[in-house]
Amino acid sequence: MSTDSITELVVDIAKRARRASLELAALSTETKNRFLLDLAQRLVNETDAIIQANAQDLNNAKESGLSLPMTERLTFTPERIQSMAEGVKQVAALPDPVGVEIERLSPPKGFDLRKIRVPMGVIGIIYESRPNVTIDCAILCLKSGNASILRGGKEAFHSNMKLAAIIQEALRANGIHEDAVQFIPTTDRAALTVLLKQDDTIHCIIPRGGESLIRFTVENSRIPVIKHYTGVCSIYVDASADADMAESILINSKCQRPSVCNSAENLIIHQDASAQLPRLAKALHDHGVELRVDTHAKALLNASGLPLVNATDADFATEYTDLIISIAVVPDIQAAIALINANSSGHTESIVTEDTSAAQRFLTEVDSAAVFHNASTRFSDGFEFGLGAEIGISTDRLHARGPMGLNELCTYKYVIHGTGEIR
Amino acid sequence: MSTDSITELVVDIAKRARRASLELAALSTETKNRFLLDLAQRLVNETDAIIQANAQDLNNAKESGLSLPMTERLTFTPERIQSMAEGVKQVAALPDPVGVEIERLSPPKGFDLRKIRVPMGVIGIIYESRPNVTIDCAILCLKSGNASILRGGKEAFHSNMKLAAIIQEALRANGIHEDAVQFIPTTDRAALTVLLKQDDTIHCIIPRGGESLIRFTVENSRIPVIKHYTGVCSIYVDASADADMAESILINSKCQRPSVCNSAENLIIHQDASAQLPRLAKALHDHGVELRVDTHAKALLNASGLPLVNATDADFATEYTDLIISIAVVPDIQAAIALINANSSGHTESIVTEDTSAAQRFLTEVDSAAVFHNASTRFSDGFEFGLGAEIGISTDRLHARGPMGLNELCTYKYVIHGTGEIR
Repeated sequence: MSTDSITELVVDIAKRARRASLELAALSTETKNRFLLDLAQRLVNETDAIIQANAQDLNNAKESGLSLPMTERLTFTPERIQSMAEGVKQVAALPDPVGVEIERLSPPKGFDLRKIRVPMGVIGIIYESRPNVTIDCAILCLKSGNASILRGGKEAFHSNMKLAAIIQEALRANGIHEDAVQFIPTTDRAALTVLLKQDDTIHCIIPRGGESLIRFTVENSRIPVIKHYTGVCSIYVDASADADMAESILINSKCQRPSVCNSAENLIIHQDASAQLPRLAKALHDHGVELRVDTHAKALLNASGLPLVNATDADFATEYTDLIISIAVVPDIQAAIALINANSSGHTESIVTEDTSAAQRFLTEVDSAAVFHNASTRFSDGFEFGLGAEIGISTDRLHARGPMGLNELCTYKYVIHGTGEIR
Repeated sequence: MSTDSITELVVDIAKRARRASLELAALSTETKNRFLLDLAQRLVNETDAIIQANAQDLNNAKESGLSLPMTERLTFTPERIQSMAEGVKQVAALPDPVGVEIERLSPPKGFDLRKIRVPMGVIGIIYESRPNVTIDCAILCLKSGNASILRGGKEAFHSNMKLAAIIQEALRANGIHEDAVQFIPTTDRAALTVLLKQDDTIHCIIPRGGESLIRFTVENSRIPVIKHYTGVCSIYVDASADADMAESILINSKCQRPSVCNSAENLIIHQDASAQLPRLAKALHDHGVELRVDTHAKALLNASGLPLVNATDADFATEYTDLIISIAVVPDIQAAIALINANSSGHTESIVTEDTSAAQRFLTEVDSAAVFHNASTRFSDGFEFGLGAEIGISTDRLHARGPMGLNELCTYKYVIHGTGEIR
């Protein structure tokens, strides 16, 4: 496609999404849920066709030498399609966020003033290989009354196009504006650049993918972006930490699922708790974790016989997403907080301590989206928080911070019911 | 200054603001309020010095031929300084937004999970001629626990530098980090461009000024921007509107203070209420308002003898900030809503009607920050809403929409108090 025709295509998609969004905002909960349940059924019914489209992507993946983990994430099976359909049903069962009164205000003149939750309007989602994101994002946007424009990666193009077609059929069958969910039918980078300039019609961009995709989005977007950067999460073992609890929280945070953003990357330990370090290091090593240690930690662990790697400063700001941990020993809680605030990605941190005032200081002064006292960082998650579903975990501060559920896909409006008031 | 030294200056200011912000987040309400009351006193005490600095700006304004209204906005008098100091005392009296529990969640695993309001971090404010904005923004940011970086216009440079020096003295005298409020001591455009790229250290940019300043900011910023665009507000007089109420709301919305963003620019009238149009038009004319009419309105008003101007389509999307109004007659409420959603800046709209279901439809389907039933658009304001103070009125949807008070200058964090929970 020529640049001109790509521009025309994307501008048209954005305008149509804006028009659809005005209808969607007034859509009944019943209609949205009927659509979702119908979509779930259609996904199951179309299992063979989805797998056939997916086979084209897998074939291309093979030819282009896509890595095994990437290929694995790209692959649909009947079980995965079934589970995707279950996810759609779960969203149907969640309460509708739209129209809810968030706050009743007390204006000095006494008129009736309420803050009501309403959809944002049009949301652009930019994502990479996993094709189930197409369904996840489309349904969360629709349930929250937003029109969505989906822009998936080239690896999953055929799978995405098939899923988008099924969504279109379900929209039409349920009398919803067919531009409510649109998929951009080209993987040309130019389409992305054009999309990011449509600030008259698109209200929010959510990039889901690697750091380079997010950085490209931020640098090229005129539309507000909600970023979901990496998770460089830390466990801080305070002077008064309970040793059993420290070990159990550390191992769970680091090892239960090291590839995800809420797993721990750093262990920071108060020097007065350094007697616990050999035990913690051994437990990590027994779980296959590589230990990258600062000089103080190294001195304390030299006698342990465990294999140690010297940590660099940069290690403490690195998301390994692997069985590796950076370990530092600090003189006091202030140094721990400073180390975290200097290196964290602002995602999730946890303090293990029996000292309530130390906990309170940590929870106040650590500047991250989620701060935990005596709990695993792995709980930083929309489902675990009870949000019902999540579109991601924001490392931004504006609008949404931490796990983003249906409420966070909405904005609000102020509604006055007056009786002729004038100033 | 060379470009290199400007870059160095601005990057350093941003880094120092970030460091200060980590201290500010934990500052007690008492310390913040003591600072504010001291600052109020210092402003009054330094009245002569402020007026002296202001005289330099007024002198430059005269030489450069600054317009009379602009010069008027630039001018300090002892009364204005007194009223600025009163404003500072009022902010001291407002409740501290920081640390407030916004929500207690119900996670499936049952641990104690709360959403707590916390400062954003570092806020950059970019503004134009009025020097009192320096004080307004600095105090709202500080009260909400945020470090601020202020970038004022060149017309008010000497006044701003003096106010910034007084703020610095008050910070030092009250033991607050002196980088909590910083003013950029150059009006070179390069400083602004550098500022807008400091997304590692600055968390939010709020531009307050004309459309070209806001557009420049959006196009050059890597930092999230909260826009305060124009207010193109409409009054819709529905079929069943009470004629007296329609006139009083219309005249108040249009004429009480036509230069501000919450004044009305458009009158849209249902054809079944067209009998009211001659009376409304006469009242507007009697208040000195120019009438720009569509063809339908013109036909209805031709016999009135009132002077009429033909409205263009663009008129309905224009913020006049003057005694001019655009008038359209529509066949039904659907057409009124469509006209508003196509032309409004998303600020404030009001329906005048006795029909509750028409009101409900308007309030739901009109996609603006504030939607009113039987009340003047002039109430769309932080003070009138009971927010106590406002830093502006956001026409954005993300984070803050409509009047932005202290709460809207904050973000939140999730805090878990656990007892050793793991997944």
